[in-house]
Amino acid sequence: MSTAADIQTRPFAEALKDAQARITAHMEMRLAGSDELHAGMRYAITGGKMLRGFLVLESARLHGVPAEAAIEAALAIECIHAYSLVHDDLPCMDDDDLRRGQPTLHRKWDEAMAVLAGDSLQTFAFELLADPKVGPHALTLIRGLAQSSGKDGMVSGQMLDIAAETAGAPLTLEQITKLQGRKTGCLIEWSATAGAVMAGADPAPLRQYACALGLAFQIADDILDVEGDAAKVGKAVRKDADAGKATFVSLLGLAEAKARAQSLCDEACAALSLFGEDAATLKEAARFVIARDS
Amino acid sequence: MSTAADIQTRPFAEALKDAQARITAHMEMRLAGSDELHAGMRYAITGGKMLRGFLVLESARLHGVPAEAAIEAALAIECIHAYSLVHDDLPCMDDDDLRRGQPTLHRKWDEAMAVLAGDSLQTFAFELLADPKVGPHALTLIRGLAQSSGKDGMVSGQMLDIAAETAGAPLTLEQITKLQGRKTGCLIEWSATAGAVMAGADPAPLRQYACALGLAFQIADDILDVEGDAAKVGKAVRKDADAGKATFVSLLGLAEAKARAQSLCDEACAALSLFGEDAATLKEAARFVIARDS
Repeated sequence: MSTAADIQTRPFAEALKDAQARITAHMEMRLAGSDELHAGMRYAITGGKMLRGFLVLESARLHGVPAEAAIEAALAIECIHAYSLVHDDLPCMDDDDLRRGQPTLHRKWDEAMAVLAGDSLQTFAFELLADPKVGPHALTLIRGLAQSSGKDGMVSGQMLDIAAETAGAPLTLEQITKLQGRKTGCLIEWSATAGAVMAGADPAPLRQYACALGLAFQIADDILDVEGDAAKVGKAVRKDADAGKATFVSLLGLAEAKARAQSLCDEACAALSLFGEDAATLKEAARFVIARDS
Repeated sequence: MSTAADIQTRPFAEALKDAQARITAHMEMRLAGSDELHAGMRYAITGGKMLRGFLVLESARLHGVPAEAAIEAALAIECIHAYSLVHDDLPCMDDDDLRRGQPTLHRKWDEAMAVLAGDSLQTFAFELLADPKVGPHALTLIRGLAQSSGKDGMVSGQMLDIAAETAGAPLTLEQITKLQGRKTGCLIEWSATAGAVMAGADPAPLRQYACALGLAFQIADDILDVEGDAAKVGKAVRKDADAGKATFVSLLGLAEAKARAQSLCDEACAALSLFGEDAATLKEAARFVIARDS
């Protein structure tokens, strides 16, 4: 796998940095409260890659959606992602001490705060999407986010993950693909299609892009868990391998996992061919996802 | 305080029972999935008084809202209420073993399941409200539910509650009124006004009713904690008194707390005078709230 420095990521890197700055500024405005709960919510969102929020902003730009609508949806998906990480890090779940190179929320505060900050981040995501600025397709976005993140989406993926840990046998490739599709794929799909949905356009090309991207993202994550540097990744690595957990790397081998990630990246880019040069940044995002070192 | 049997509650009791049956049937249809997560979600909703869902259905009936719209909102508020109880019962929060006379969710399953079932109950509430059947005011309902249950509503009330426990001095009457207004009052207000909102009508009278009702409800809860029978209440009693926590009873005394609950009940009923006989059931609900033994 090439490293991020080998490839031409400059416009993407700039677009991502710009997205991070805009989402963070909007978050600080929207979550300006001075109490501990607001502080915890801000802490949970701060410092993330904000790839999902970037996908929302880019797909919105591609479809001519007003920036003031797109930013609400971009912050909303980052709130959902942040809440899932805060709850996932809890002692009764993955029991992680480190996230993005910082103490996890229950380490910085305590478990009760982590439960409540996670809960209110989820609530806040739906509050943002119900803002009149989001426009005429807000309900479709809300319904989609609920379906992607709840009992038939992300949370069901977390349940499958827990069930896999307690089961005797490691997962098959088919099972792990299903699990990851729910756990991370659903939210990536929602993010990449959000712009099309807000514009009332056909979300099919972006859905195809997102399906390939989501899987490539997870394969890259498993490769990072084997090859990554904890200091750069910002969280513990080699946890899965040490736990004897089935991953794309353990099932496919490192070389085949890298080849699979590359072909998914090509597939993701091909899905955007009808957008021509307008989709250059999203195509670079796909290349970044499989080349990242954190 | 009179007991439930002393007062004329028959039509209310029937209406409540009918609401419970309709909400439960709708829940079983909407949450029919056969996996553990769905089972946990159903468990969390089952057996509740469903007073909030009842308030939604009654205020919807009062405003001529179609039953198929009202039932989505009624189930949604019961999902929010259930999620808050499941997370509140966790060892890192109130650490309760018993709820509605049954083991709490983390006791019946485990903590991870309680976190995830609570999370997906919250998500599901917003999914229900985004259903096209809810009608043209769905976004207003969603925005209101997010504001009532999140960082500026219920969850902020839970934070105040935790802060009060760790603070040295017990709360004043003003502080406890604010805390309870957020922790339980906000959701009762959302429930009672939901019918007016769905109909595009003025929610002010029902808001006034709900404010008085919510406070009366909490005072009655504190009275139950002192006078109640754990077997009937379905959860541990005398927890607050034993913990030396400030309650309406400890601050006002038992007699004054009862008098206050009664005058709030009268206030709630007076707010509905313009609806005449149509609001008889809601008025009885207020009387029930202060007379209940569980």
